Amino acid sequence: MADKNQVLIYGRHAVMSALANPSRKIIKVMCLRENLGELKGKIADNKIMLVERKELDKLVSAEAVHQGFVVVAEKLFPVLLEDVCKQLKHKDNCNVLILDQVTDPQNIGAIVRSCMAFGCSALIVQDKNSPQESGAMLKAAAGTFENLPICRVTNLSRAIEKLKKEDFWVVGMDGYAKTNIDKMNKTGKLAVVMGSEGKGMRRLIEESCDITVRLPICEKVESLNVSTAAAVVLYELSKK
Amino acid sequence: MADKNQVLIYGRHAVMSALANPSRKIIKVMCLRENLGELKGKIADNKIMLVERKELDKLVSAEAVHQGFVVVAEKLFPVLLEDVCKQLKHKDNCNVLILDQVTDPQNIGAIVRSCMAFGCSALIVQDKNSPQESGAMLKAAAGTFENLPICRVTNLSRAIEKLKKEDFWVVGMDGYAKTNIDKMNKTGKLAVVMGSEGKGMRRLIEESCDITVRLPICEKVESLNVSTAAAVVLYELSKK
Repeated sequence: MADKNQVLIYGRHAVMSALANPSRKIIKVMCLRENLGELKGKIADNKIMLVERKELDKLVSAEAVHQGFVVVAEKLFPVLLEDVCKQLKHKDNCNVLILDQVTDPQNIGAIVRSCMAFGCSALIVQDKNSPQESGAMLKAAAGTFENLPICRVTNLSRAIEKLKKEDFWVVGMDGYAKTNIDKMNKTGKLAVVMGSEGKGMRRLIEESCDITVRLPICEKVESLNVSTAAAVVLYELSKK
Repeated sequence: MADKNQVLIYGRHAVMSALANPSRKIIKVMCLRENLGELKGKIADNKIMLVERKELDKLVSAEAVHQGFVVVAEKLFPVLLEDVCKQLKHKDNCNVLILDQVTDPQNIGAIVRSCMAFGCSALIVQDKNSPQESGAMLKAAAGTFENLPICRVTNLSRAIEKLKKEDFWVVGMDGYAKTNIDKMNKTGKLAVVMGSEGKGMRRLIEESCDITVRLPICEKVESLNVSTAAAVVLYELSKK
């Protein structure tokens, strides 16, 4: 259905936010007759296609809940790191999150939602090892994907260097670090780096951090899911 | 394959913890020949069945990752609330988590994992509106399900009354509460109540709380996923 520059957006929250986003180019909205009222004033009539439930079920995978709406839209343009830096130049306190090799689209969607909930200013990922925008990702983000600046950079180490020059303090999350995150000075501009569950950050990325800290979790538990860990970290850092 | 007192356990973490749990009655372990070495000393040979990958794929749903192991086991006996209270009687500081109408098995599994990570002593759910132990739940718990006391009570209000008599301070999570969770006195015995995403707690349950507090999230974001919110709450309360 969707070509490679397009994405299928489903689920009420994800769909309504996409329609409300002026930067999101909508190709068409497929919806059930009973849901038509909810689209009033949100999209031109000639972009709406009334369809049967079976057709929507066929478009999205069995596990996904479309709630009666499926949109075909163009993917958003990634934001440039330069533009994020420019926007944050005169802020004294702000956070950005960097993900190294997190590959699960639902985790990334959930992380986007936590970024928005806890006031994180941008998400930075490495283009080639991070999944493209997808319906599952947008569904997990529950409508927040449209509003968070997301940078897809070619080289994460270079992005970290750039952030350092812009006065960001680079904090790596590492289960073996000595300092607990709640003992860390949280003022100023922070760029937090999180690796994939299990593997953690790549060594070179870790070495480029100014400090590594850990979440204080019970010894018996090996690790947290990366989206859970991100939520706790972003919450902790929002308290500055 | 499994009858109603049995559960299919899959995924390396979930399977290995089940095998290490003396209270877990294992019926049989199905595994790939290449994974046989990992079972050494963990289960009697006559309970192991070597199978082809295709057979494991057929046993678990398409979205699930079995990592070469599927176990048929009996469900765990739920723990009695009385026993949890007895165990915590002489503790000055401890937390338990109460879920009201959280129905998604993966969310519950993820919450179990966060309970264990952040030192929560027990999880309490209402039997009739909470899903039974399942493979998806155990997979999301990543091996922690075997170790957390889980009480399935008939009546949540009565359980809350019981906890109050045992000197627990009952804290309801409510997005509209006036007090931020980090401004709350966290010493002593706390029972935290969380409702389902969207609907929140039922009115009667909310009225039985001693205090309601909220997570400080950005106004633009309506809510967090319940398992994300639980992780942040349990983290915050672990800092006492």
